[in-house]
Parts: sequence; C-alpha cells; structure tokens
Amino acid sequence: MDLQEYMLRMGKQAREAAKILAKTPTKVKNQALEAIAQQLRQQQQLLLAANAKDLETGKAKGLDSALLDRLTLNDLRITNLIEGLHQVIALPDPVGAITDLNYRPSGIQVGKMRVPLGVVGMIYESRPNVTAEAAALCLKSGNATILRGGSESIHSNQAIAQCISAGLQAASLPSTAVQVIETTDRAAVGELIRLAKYVDVIIPRGGKSLIERISQEACIPVIKHLDGICHTYIDDQADLDKAITVAYNAKTQRYGTCNTMETLLVAAGIAAQVLPPLAEKYQAAGVELRGCPVTQAILPGIQSATAEDWDTEYLAPILSIRVVKDLDEAMEHICQHGSQHTDAIITENWNRARRFLTEVDSSSVMVNTSTRFADGFEYGLGAEIGISTDKFHARGPVGLEGLTSQKFIVLGDGQIRQ
Amino acid sequence: MDLQEYMLRMGKQAREAAKILAKTPTKVKNQALEAIAQQLRQQQQLLLAANAKDLETGKAKGLDSALLDRLTLNDLRITNLIEGLHQVIALPDPVGAITDLNYRPSGIQVGKMRVPLGVVGMIYESRPNVTAEAAALCLKSGNATILRGGSESIHSNQAIAQCISAGLQAASLPSTAVQVIETTDRAAVGELIRLAKYVDVIIPRGGKSLIERISQEACIPVIKHLDGICHTYIDDQADLDKAITVAYNAKTQRYGTCNTMETLLVAAGIAAQVLPPLAEKYQAAGVELRGCPVTQAILPGIQSATAEDWDTEYLAPILSIRVVKDLDEAMEHICQHGSQHTDAIITENWNRARRFLTEVDSSSVMVNTSTRFADGFEYGLGAEIGISTDKFHARGPVGLEGLTSQKFIVLGDGQIRQ
Repeated sequence: MDLQEYMLRMGKQAREAAKILAKTPTKVKNQALEAIAQQLRQQQQLLLAANAKDLETGKAKGLDSALLDRLTLNDLRITNLIEGLHQVIALPDPVGAITDLNYRPSGIQVGKMRVPLGVVGMIYESRPNVTAEAAALCLKSGNATILRGGSESIHSNQAIAQCISAGLQAASLPSTAVQVIETTDRAAVGELIRLAKYVDVIIPRGGKSLIERISQEACIPVIKHLDGICHTYIDDQADLDKAITVAYNAKTQRYGTCNTMETLLVAAGIAAQVLPPLAEKYQAAGVELRGCPVTQAILPGIQSATAEDWDTEYLAPILSIRVVKDLDEAMEHICQHGSQHTDAIITENWNRARRFLTEVDSSSVMVNTSTRFADGFEYGLGAEIGISTDKFHARGPVGLEGLTSQKFIVLGDGQIRQ
Repeated sequence: MDLQEYMLRMGKQAREAAKILAKTPTKVKNQALEAIAQQLRQQQQLLLAANAKDLETGKAKGLDSALLDRLTLNDLRITNLIEGLHQVIALPDPVGAITDLNYRPSGIQVGKMRVPLGVVGMIYESRPNVTAEAAALCLKSGNATILRGGSESIHSNQAIAQCISAGLQAASLPSTAVQVIETTDRAAVGELIRLAKYVDVIIPRGGKSLIERISQEACIPVIKHLDGICHTYIDDQADLDKAITVAYNAKTQRYGTCNTMETLLVAAGIAAQVLPPLAEKYQAAGVELRGCPVTQAILPGIQSATAEDWDTEYLAPILSIRVVKDLDEAMEHICQHGSQHTDAIITENWNRARRFLTEVDSSSVMVNTSTRFADGFEYGLGAEIGISTDKFHARGPVGLEGLTSQKFIVLGDGQIRQ
C-alpha cells in the first residue's frame, strides 16, 4: 500500500462526506447515531472477540495494567458506550444556529450562522471507547472524521468502525463520514497532520510529548491539551469549612484526571488554622504531602517540596503545598508554574474573587469550588472531545460548539454599497 | 546583533506587557490611544520626513506606482490615521464581557469571560498606516503586538513606533506593549513565527505566496487571508432590477478589493433577459467580459473564458460570466472554484435563498446584496485587522472580538464534585 496515496484518498473522501454532513438535518444525524448504537449492541460478541485479540497482543507486548485497562472492552463498557451515544443524540444540534442578526445603517442585516469545521482528524491512545465517542460528537456537529487510535487497539477499532459504517448507511449517510485508519504504520499520523487541504483540525490525545510533536509538525490547526497543573489558593479571608471541603475534594475525588489539584497555595494569615485539619484529612486518604519550609514548620514531618514539584502534574495521591504572602504572590506562582488549565480561589472577599477571575489566565478560573468541576458534562456541554489548554478557537472543555465555526450571513433586498 | 536573541527578547517583553494589558481598564487603554493620536499629530513633520526617506529608497529600488502609493504618507492620510484611532476609542471593549452564566445542577454557575489572546505577531506589506491601525486594534483588545512591516517602510514605521511608544508611556503603560521589529532582515519573520512560547497568533497580510509560506512554516496559529474569488449567482427567480443593480455594484464599486465579485453565475432561465442590459452597464464602465459559450451566444463579441478564468482573482475591471442550469450547478461551481470568501445569491425564492445560506461554505454568504459589503466597518465590527478565509477561530472580517478568546469562569459557594 502506498501510504501517502492511501491517506490522500481518505482525506478526499472525508472532504466529500463533510459537504453532505454539513447539510444533513439533525433528525438524520440522530437516526445515524441511533443506528450505530443498535449495531454496537447487536455486534457486542464480535466487538468483544476483536478486543480479546488486542488484549492478547497487548499482554504479549508487555503493556502495563493501566494501559490494558484502558484497552479493555466488556459488557458494561459497551453499555456505557451506547449510553454515551444516546446522550449525544439528546444534545441540541449547534449547526445552523443564527445569532446577532442585526440591521446595519445600510439596510442589510448581518448575523452569524454556526457551521461545522469540516473534517476532524483525531489521534488518540489505545482506547476503543474514544473511537465511538469521537465519531458521535463529530457526526452530531456535522463534521467528517478520520480516526487514528493507538496501534494496540487496531482490531477493536476496526470492529467499532464496522458498526459505525453500518449505522451511517442505515441513515443513508456516506460511510466515509467516519473513517478509521486501518494501518498501524506510524507514518500515517505524519501524513494525516499534513493533509491541509482535506483536514480542518487535528485533535491529539495522549502523552504530552506526542502532543507536542504533533503540534510542532502539523500544518493544520491543532486543538491540544498539554498538562493540567491545577491550583487551589486558600485566601486569608476564606471560610475555613469551605476551604477544607473544597481543597480536599479537588485533590482526592479522583487522582488521575487533568483537573485534579496538584498544588495547594495557602495565604500566610490562615495557614496555621487551615493546614493542620486539612493535612489530617489528606493523610487519612493516603495523600503524600510535600511542603515549602513554612508549610513544614506548620506540618512537621512532611517531605519538603523541591523546585521540580511545583512544575509537576502528579496524577497521583501526592500534593505540593506552598504558603504565600497574599493574592499577588499566589497569582504569580500560578502564572509561573501553572499550565493554564484550571485554577481556583477560596475566599469570601469580593474584590479578591473579582481580581482572581480577571487576572488568572487559565481555561477555567473558579471561585469557592473544586477544580474537579472543569469538565464538559459538569459545564453542561454534554460530552467533551477534549480539553483545550490553548487560547485560540476553543479554550477549556471542547464540546459540540468547539467543533463548529461561525460564518457571516448577510440578508438584503437589493442594497448596494455606496 | 544576534537575531535569534533579539527576537526572543522581543517575545519575552511582549509576554510581560501582555500580562499588564490583560488587566488594564478600558479607560486607560483609551487614554493611551488618545495620546498616540496626539503624538501622531504633533510629530506629523517628523513622520513625513521619515516617509520621504522611504519613498526615495523605494523609487531608487524601482517600486511600481501602486506600491509607492501604499507606502506614501501625507497630511490627509495622517489625519485619516488619527481619525481611525478615534474610531477604535469609540468601539466597545470586548475584554471582560461575561456571557452564558448559568446555574448547573451541582449548584455552580458556569459562564464564559472574554479575554485577550495575548501576543499578536503582525506581518504586513510596506504600508505605514497598518502599523498604527494594527497597534490600535490590538491595544484596545488587550493584546501586546510585535509588528513587522515591509522593509521599504522601515523609517516610517520607526517614526510611528516612536509616537506609539510615547503615547503608551503617557498612559503609564509599558512601551513594549507595541514593538516594531527594527531590522529589515527577512530572517526576523522566520524567528517570529516560531516564538510559540511568546506569540499566540500570527496575522500575515500581503501576497498569497507569502501567506502560504508563513502558514506552512509557522509553529503558531495563523489568521490568514488567502484570495477572494467572490461570486454572485443570479437565480431565475431573481428580481431583474435588483439583479442588475447588485451585480453591477459587486463588480464596479471598487476593483482592487478582495470582496469584489470576480465571477457572475446566471441561471439559464433568466440569462437572455438579464445579461444584455447588465453587459451594457459593465461595458460602459470599461469592464472586460469573458464568458462561457452560452454567455457568448447571448453577448456576441465578448471574449471566451478559459478554464483558468474561473480560478482567477482579477482585482481588475475584468469579469468572467457563466450560465448555469440551476442553483445546484451554481453552488457546485462556487464550491469548485470559489475561495470561501464571499458569495451571494439574487433570488426572490425563499427556499433557494435558505439553501444558499446553509449550503455555501464561505466566510460571508449573502442574499440579494452586494459582495462589496463583506467588510468590518459595514458589518459593524468597527475596524478590521484582516479578513480570515479560515474556518478555525475567526471567519470573515476580524475585528476586536477575533483578537480575543473566552475562558470559563465557575462561581460557587463551597460546592464539591460528588
């Protein structure tokens, strides 16, 4: 197979399919999603068999248990996948929405109409569920998709691709609306990110180094998610109960997620009050604490935080703690060490809350609540295709709207420009 | 001078300035713009002297009259520049606007706050007025700017840069909020478009080949404007008078602009009625017509359009005309040959107008009006920093809002994630 030619053909087919999807009514897109859900249910045994093959290869390759877990499909996960499709069906269709339609002095009306981006290229790890989720979100937002999952999931992905293809055909949509790259050759990714004529956006998911490399090499806009070094700052005018409850939740509700707090900043004026009870809760939950010298003085016996700690996304039951002078020092720390993902302040002081909201340059900025809320479902976007740590186009959780753009529409009755 | 180090320093300074600009109140930004306007007025003789130097070098280099005209500053143009600054002062400040703030079932409120992109890198031709206009739009939207004009305008740009710097200082803003690259070394552009850590977006203006090269090589998002091959389609249910008035205006109101119609598509059923009177008007205005065979049969004596004509942005008094069967053939032609810039339909038929609006994938899609309206001023955006033919982030005329992004804000009262 000539890889370049293969990817070029895929790109062209996606572009053609995108034209059709862009004008496909909501009802038909939902019919296709429903048909895909039915296919996944009907082909459940086939999916599990394909997945078993991947798992076998993965074990032989020596994948660690976390990777094997992400690769695994089982009855429950397939049911969840199908449930996810139904959630996407229930979401409002963003395409075609017209906003800001106003008369201009010339007599024309100018407004904006929401339209699909066109063709989305997804590059992700060996997680078969992403294949179905990404396809569903792109389909609902009127975009064609080219999907490239990790090589360990190739059989599972092909089995899911067959279900998607059959579902699309059942709704009389082109099966090329969702294409799964069938080769595990890594060079296919290199080709995909250079198909500027046929692909409108690349969404990579996975390790930071992979995403950095793709961003460097792509000739196409990238919606990227690098790391999540999230902070909670407990101001000296914080409510103690709220501070303890929220800071505990932000770290311990889940450890491996990008919106988990990794560093706790505490104002010097409240540190001696808030840190001991909070540390007790963390330690009871098995969280390892690493502190600055002032923190260590308040919490004797904890490890000292090194310079590296402030720049680390642990994704684990570890928390670095720093006592800062005031809001300014907290914001300076976040600016220096944060990843512009999600940062929160706990305070009852109106002015400081307003300053934090305005001045912290992160995709989600929060007052008196847990960073763990930074998530498409919690924000009411429905599912999310990713979380963007960029500022361009989409910031934060990217749902259906982030997969669309707006064109201007101009309505007249014979007006001409003078 | 070590160019790489020079550009790196410029990038770092811009990033520092951007932090300050992001939290600068509207009033102070307007004071700076006002002070810049005053400086331009006070330093008018100095500007003209610097410009005379550029013009002399330009003439010696053999620049053609169009380029020399764009390079020229004179009393009227400086007055227009100052007037342009006052218009930017009058525009509403987009920064800080909060939208879609809604309660979620968890009790948190989630909304979006508009924020500056950060640092904008502008690369443009030898047009000194762009230096002041771009600086003003970026400043008002809270962005720091690094400006790189064509080498022929270097003295004019440096003189304008001094006015800007003095104006910024008068408002106690860092003079590094707007930086003009002081070397004419082309390698500076290559460095600028790779300063991914310090520059958030590149806006190139100029020839298509330059923009294509920058887009290929940049490691930073680019807001780009390639070509404007704009169409007007006269449907067979068009009002004849409107069709003639609008199609005449779309071609002849100005020839050299990107939103000028370059190809007229006419439905077969109305061609014999509409083309003869329209051709008479075009020919009286000196527009050269090039037609498909059917057009030539209706308008004997006109040149035949070659395959190349349909893909050409003339920017001149030349118009290609094609008779098409119906709306579908017209939209197919636009899809094949258009540049997704601006396209219009003239029709009284409701359903066809709706289909054209939905199905034509251009940054501006119009019904019964002139493509010449596709412009930031006419759309009510105020000035525009460019017109984007991309779909990502901003489409069509890019004003202040296109220079901003939105972050999520989350307000709570101690809520935690369950």
